[in-house]
Amino acid sequence: MYFHRQELQHTATPEKPDAVYARKLQEVLGGQYGEITVALQYQFQAWNMHIPGKYRDLVFGIGAEEMGHVEMLAVMIAQLLEKAPLGITEEAVQNDPTVAAVIGGTDIQHGIVAGAGARPVDSMGNPWSGSYITASGNLLADFTANANAEMQGRVQVARLYHQTDDHGVKDLLAFLLARDTMHQNQWAAAAAELQAEGLEKMPVPSNFPLDKEERDVAYQYINFSNGTKAGDGTWASGPTPDGKGEFTYLPEPPAGVPMPPPTHPDARFYGTTELPNTVEKLAGRAQDALHKE
Amino acid sequence: MYFHRQELQHTATPEKPDAVYARKLQEVLGGQYGEITVALQYQFQAWNMHIPGKYRDLVFGIGAEEMGHVEMLAVMIAQLLEKAPLGITEEAVQNDPTVAAVIGGTDIQHGIVAGAGARPVDSMGNPWSGSYITASGNLLADFTANANAEMQGRVQVARLYHQTDDHGVKDLLAFLLARDTMHQNQWAAAAAELQAEGLEKMPVPSNFPLDKEERDVAYQYINFSNGTKAGDGTWASGPTPDGKGEFTYLPEPPAGVPMPPPTHPDARFYGTTELPNTVEKLAGRAQDALHKE
Amino acid sequence: MYFHRQELQHTATPEKPDAVYARKLQEVLGGQYGEITVALQYQFQAWNMHIPGKYRDLVFGIGAEEMGHVEMLAVMIAQLLEKAPLGITEEAVQNDPTVAAVIGGTDIQHGIVAGAGARPVDSMGNPWSGSYITASGNLLADFTANANAEMQGRVQVARLYHQTDDHGVKDLLAFLLARDTMHQNQWAAAAAELQAEGLEKMPVPSNFPLDKEERDVAYQYINFSNGTKAGDGTWASGPTPDGKGEFTYLPEPPAGVPMPPPTHPDARFYGTTELPNTVEKLAGRAQDALHKE
Amino acid sequence: MYFHRQELQHTATPEKPDAVYARKLQEVLGGQYGEITVALQYQFQAWNMHIPGKYRDLVFGIGAEEMGHVEMLAVMIAQLLEKAPLGITEEAVQNDPTVAAVIGGTDIQHGIVAGAGARPVDSMGNPWSGSYITASGNLLADFTANANAEMQGRVQVARLYHQTDDHGVKDLLAFLLARDTMHQNQWAAAAAELQAEGLEKMPVPSNFPLDKEERDVAYQYINFSNGTKAGDGTWASGPTPDGKGEFTYLPEPPAGVPMPPPTHPDARFYGTTELPNTVEKLAGRAQDALHKE
Amino acid sequence: MYFHRQELQHTATPEKPDAVYARKLQEVLGGQYGEITVALQYQFQAWNMHIPGKYRDLVFGIGAEEMGHVEMLAVMIAQLLEKAPLGITEEAVQNDPTVAAVIGGTDIQHGIVAGAGARPVDSMGNPWSGSYITASGNLLADFTANANAEMQGRVQVARLYHQTDDHGVKDLLAFLLARDTMHQNQWAAAAAELQAEGLEKMPVPSNFPLDKEERDVAYQYINFSNGTKAGDGTWASGPTPDGKGEFTYLPEPPAGVPMPPPTHPDARFYGTTELPNTVEKLAGRAQDALHKE
Amino acid sequence: MYFHRQELQHTATPEKPDAVYARKLQEVLGGQYGEITVALQYQFQAWNMHIPGKYRDLVFGIGAEEMGHVEMLAVMIAQLLEKAPLGITEEAVQNDPTVAAVIGGTDIQHGIVAGAGARPVDSMGNPWSGSYITASGNLLADFTANANAEMQGRVQVARLYHQTDDHGVKDLLAFLLARDTMHQNQWAAAAAELQAEGLEKMPVPSNFPLDKEERDVAYQYINFSNGTKAGDGTWASGPTPDGKGEFTYLPEPPAGVPMPPPTHPDARFYGTTELPNTVEKLAGRAQDALHKE
Repeated sequence: MYFHRQELQHTATPEKPDAVYARKLQEVLGGQYGEITVALQYQFQAWNMHIPGKYRDLVFGIGAEEMGHVEMLAVMIAQLLEKAPLGITEEAVQNDPTVAAVIGGTDIQHGIVAGAGARPVDSMGNPWSGSYITASGNLLADFTANANAEMQGRVQVARLYHQTDDHGVKDLLAFLLARDTMHQNQWAAAAAELQAEGLEKMPVPSNFPLDKEERDVAYQYINFSNGTKAGDGTWASGPTPDGKGEFTYLPEPPAGVPMPPPTHPDARFYGTTELPNTVEKLAGRAQDALHKE
Repeated sequence: MYFHRQELQHTATPEKPDAVYARKLQEVLGGQYGEITVALQYQFQAWNMHIPGKYRDLVFGIGAEEMGHVEMLAVMIAQLLEKAPLGITEEAVQNDPTVAAVIGGTDIQHGIVAGAGARPVDSMGNPWSGSYITASGNLLADFTANANAEMQGRVQVARLYHQTDDHGVKDLLAFLLARDTMHQNQWAAAAAELQAEGLEKMPVPSNFPLDKEERDVAYQYINFSNGTKAGDGTWASGPTPDGKGEFTYLPEPPAGVPMPPPTHPDARFYGTTELPNTVEKLAGRAQDALHKE
Repeated sequence: MYFHRQELQHTATPEKPDAVYARKLQEVLGGQYGEITVALQYQFQAWNMHIPGKYRDLVFGIGAEEMGHVEMLAVMIAQLLEKAPLGITEEAVQNDPTVAAVIGGTDIQHGIVAGAGARPVDSMGNPWSGSYITASGNLLADFTANANAEMQGRVQVARLYHQTDDHGVKDLLAFLLARDTMHQNQWAAAAAELQAEGLEKMPVPSNFPLDKEERDVAYQYINFSNGTKAGDGTWASGPTPDGKGEFTYLPEPPAGVPMPPPTHPDARFYGTTELPNTVEKLAGRAQDALHKE
Repeated sequence: MYFHRQELQHTATPEKPDAVYARKLQEVLGGQYGEITVALQYQFQAWNMHIPGKYRDLVFGIGAEEMGHVEMLAVMIAQLLEKAPLGITEEAVQNDPTVAAVIGGTDIQHGIVAGAGARPVDSMGNPWSGSYITASGNLLADFTANANAEMQGRVQVARLYHQTDDHGVKDLLAFLLARDTMHQNQWAAAAAELQAEGLEKMPVPSNFPLDKEERDVAYQYINFSNGTKAGDGTWASGPTPDGKGEFTYLPEPPAGVPMPPPTHPDARFYGTTELPNTVEKLAGRAQDALHKE
Repeated sequence: MYFHRQELQHTATPEKPDAVYARKLQEVLGGQYGEITVALQYQFQAWNMHIPGKYRDLVFGIGAEEMGHVEMLAVMIAQLLEKAPLGITEEAVQNDPTVAAVIGGTDIQHGIVAGAGARPVDSMGNPWSGSYITASGNLLADFTANANAEMQGRVQVARLYHQTDDHGVKDLLAFLLARDTMHQNQWAAAAAELQAEGLEKMPVPSNFPLDKEERDVAYQYINFSNGTKAGDGTWASGPTPDGKGEFTYLPEPPAGVPMPPPTHPDARFYGTTELPNTVEKLAGRAQDALHKE
Repeated sequence: MYFHRQELQHTATPEKPDAVYARKLQEVLGGQYGEITVALQYQFQAWNMHIPGKYRDLVFGIGAEEMGHVEMLAVMIAQLLEKAPLGITEEAVQNDPTVAAVIGGTDIQHGIVAGAGARPVDSMGNPWSGSYITASGNLLADFTANANAEMQGRVQVARLYHQTDDHGVKDLLAFLLARDTMHQNQWAAAAAELQAEGLEKMPVPSNFPLDKEERDVAYQYINFSNGTKAGDGTWASGPTPDGKGEFTYLPEPPAGVPMPPPTHPDARFYGTTELPNTVEKLAGRAQDALHKE
């Protein structure tokens, strides 16, 4: 169950309106790595989890916090839009270049659709999509997804930090940056703990029997490009991070196997086949089949 | 530049047709974590990369290999569909329950749209989307995204491995599992190397000035759920993985700040406002504005 | 701020697994009118609202409850999937027609992607989309949207009620049906109250100056089809619900106005234009322009 | 059957070109609540309807009119784009701020993709989607959806009215506003008539047996937020709009029920489970299963 | 303007219900090449066209016919769904394998969302998308798109023809096949007429000055794969269809040019750059920049 | 198998940065008819093809070239973005109108998401979609789709050519225009060759038995609009392009057939039906059914 309190975790009030910046903030509200994504990702992971106790408690606890981040950003965006210009005339544009920038740089639906309100979309207006979420049930994979989400999110907030002079906005971003720092660290710690406790290891999923995979290519770096330094990294020689092998390096791929012959589906799919006489035969068969229909 | 050779990296021929399984394989061809995703993700990372040399060589080299994985899966799917049933009658269903399963379990567009061919979609028929890709230019974030993609991908292939008896299919999956093992290890190694070389560290992005974020909440685990074991993990006490702090634990959130007052955008957005007399005033203003228009 | 408690508002435990039904339930979790939609719709309305007090309190209060409904459905789906079949062989299908039904009727990604967990998608596998939400800032419009959402939702739950024999599932649906009954009634009451208090009236938006619209067609029913009974309803004669006019009925449309002539954009858009000599002239102009480039 | 006449229902010619406004108009052509939505929504409702006669005649008649509204907007947009600037140089921008506004504010695909023509997209470039449509077969629900669509649409047109000085555009919008007034009124009248005739009532769907829903929570307002005025509305006490109950108010939720224990799906889904020894057992089982494969 | 008549162009009544086939028919109603696509594609081409007269008359005339095809398919689908099974129990499945097929093979939203009605989606449940449409303003390109759409459409209907025994359905498909034959022929004739009249030629767009393109590679077939027969077609030698060149054949690509060096965007984008000392310098610059902020 | 070489087919370096143009170029990289589309379309056609030899060699050879075009555009976009402005202040806008244009005209995600890198999206930010691809297995249909794709693509590049003064960009576009000229010609030649060899003819699919379609309407142009010149083209009289008929022209549609009566699905779908007493009966039946449940 979820409970709401009409408070914010942190102040979220801009110094002045800025409709262009409101659009930019949509990225971290409703984008691929925005707060809606992490909020729902963590909650789905919790609902699907097979372990009671500390891991699930962790995921539930952060998931609910992220809902509050969605809220702070939405409230901030609404305020940035509060004085969004509406009835812009050509004359106004002539007199003030800022107006021109605002015309071009705003999310048009902020005004026309939401009446100067926040929307569940990214900075280019794409609606948030359920396909942004990852919740596989395998926790080492999922915590790695979470670490990535928090890293991408913090990179985006850092970029946004430099695109405004508004101290109110910067103050909220400074808070979000810190929480992203925290959550990056937490997912890294949780991934390490999973492995320390033996619940999951690399390669993920670790309890798939290794003898069922083709082990002779499991640690072989085959370079399909012609970069000459590809073999210089620790990914090309030495022990592998999963502790189960040694990297080897092939500067170019070995010969492949022949492609299987083309398929010949039922003639009634009307794909084009190779030889006129075959076509006739197939067409004959199709017509035979049709006769029976 | 890309060059194609009419060979496959590994044999990709099933023992017998299986239209239901062809649909399932679409997940790892055209799904969120399918081969199209990793192929394009790595290539976009390479095109956008700011570093020449070993890291870019690595990403280019794996990216091109993944294109060949897309191909092997597409060719496999076409063969699994080669004898896909077409003109199923009720009588056939009555006589053979397998037919019923096939009717329900196939991707209908495999037949009607592609004429028994592979498609750029996932196992539920959603078209592949550019939004599946991550390429931020920050390599520690992106290599973490890559590690996650290879983990999720290997989990999916492992699940698929158990859903067929076909030795030809299993043989291809055993190869893909091994390559996923390799690539998981490579991205882990590359992420470690980035940090060892000091190119990037946690928290990502590491050269954002830490004093600009709100440091007092940067290592504080605030539990927004009521799980009693949330504080038992290494994510709640002790040193943080980024080596820059100590985790602390708050079993419940401190009081928040008051929500800012509701916004009052231009009356010509026709949002509902609180007091009739205010409405009238606003409407008056709108009508004044209209007069001038 | 949002807080989570590891409890459910109502019991959500099925009597037995049913992977086919788990897929059907996805509709009311992640579909156009599923619980994610109403949860986020109400919250966005609250964040964007221009009125403090009872209306915003109402919307916040129901919005947070709906988050808990998402949770109950997700937890229910995970349990329905708990024994989802995995490694189905042809033999199994031959022996038990139920198995055939299950193969065809399940959400394939429930298994391959989520490892027998719930997903943010509808019953056909389409990911939930931010475009499902309505939050315009005009409360009479939005409360009508909410009433519709609760009606569509209750219709869907009622349909689902008849598609299972499981008493655990039916018990949860009986609860959801009742809450939908409640919320339908609440949005109807709130819409009435808005009008009673004069905050908003029909036609929405009510403070747009009526003399700016083309009043002579504002109450005229023009029938563009040839149904002979179209004029028999209260929508074709008598007073209009907004209390500002009388319906009139035209059994067929009056003559229209001529279409404006086709456009002739810049020749460098390379659209096809009508006359060869014009084309030459335009091409000439384009080449002149090119010369200058 | 549909017939087209090369006339428009109303004049649709702008005074002068305005590529930025052309983009804004796309919202009411191809957006969530644009004319394509209502045109197809009403037609699908008609095709799926279970009642011959006046209700179906009504829906068919308005549906076909809306097709003509799509056309008027498309023709208007093409004319607004007729002189869309194309080959903008930096010099031009320096000399005229209006040019800067135009660069930023246009729909880029209007030029590059459509050659200065209208497109089936909204104002942010999202393609129109079939998921915008509602046609459930339950007419009280659907007419409420229609009323909402006409309200949202009229709000958007009203907002657009203030964003142009062009008398030609304003003239068309004044016509569309009036038709939206009409259609709002018609759906309200039709919804009332359905109830007056007893075809459908609240709660929708009205012939689902009420004793099957959990009646004790069917009229109980449970506040999941902490707004103190939530109980002040007619939605919290007094008779309910469906005439079947009395609202009651709970300022905070009663205790919930315990969450069901986590699920334990087949080990071959490779979800992470709680205890190492359990993992081993499950892995053992998975390996046993694999042996048999 | 569009007018509707409550008649169908052709009989559209099945002999008996078939919910599985209803789903398949959705492909040609709401799929990429379904009737909604051609209806809207032709109408948008007409609205955007720069030529009055016969070409526009042609496009309008077919466009309106296709709206009636959408209608016939929707009505057919509703009838095929009329007896769609609803409350299927496990017992029913055990007794009749057909029931199992039906469970798996139906569009679940046909029942739960549309109450046994047609929907604006394809056979896999993807909503129809505005991105399916092509209307560039260049008529030779667009008529080629139209020819393709009618070909793909007829291929799909032909495939569907073999998947039913129902004479009512087959009768409608026989009609649609004939109309697709007609429209294929019309677009081919119209494309030829455009060229005969000199309005447009190959290469499209024909009035782009050829000397502005890099003519020395304009007729050179460069083979980027290793197929040995690639040079055997009329596409590799002899005169080119545009009448302006001779095909030549290169069995493999000539050497390329070096890739440009990696980019170095502003350090405040926090992309990873190559050398620690550079990083420090950049970070320094970022901090300088921050100081000034 | 695919191999990558760190070279480009043609120089791709701009003279100077231009973030606005970088966004425009996204259209031909990741749009409906961008290079990702043709690259994947041709490769899927090759993988699904039923004919070995020259046709498949052709499709593979061009498909791999197009991957290199994706690369050139991505690299060009990254360079155009290299100096993308980041921290724009209001003051800067006041001083330089170009800055205003840049603010409005850029792809916001280029900076915030990709750190000044290319993305798999179109010029309006819509992610590339698998639904852009056509690969039916019928080669005459598919080669027509390919000809269309190359025509649309060349039209778009020609339009883009006029929107920049940068010689580096123009040089790359001149190359792409020439390759589009080539590929247009190749698909036209291949389509002709298919027909010359008798592998496929019009109407596509040509081996569907013509006597199964309703031949009496197969060459009849029925005008559903009132354009008086619709009959003036070669599409209305004379021999048909498929060589199998004569066009005839009907200036308006003949009478249709009556619409079938409305459907009456199971009452438990809760659709609204016509007569109260019927409703009661149906409700009774539903309640009977419920009793048994």
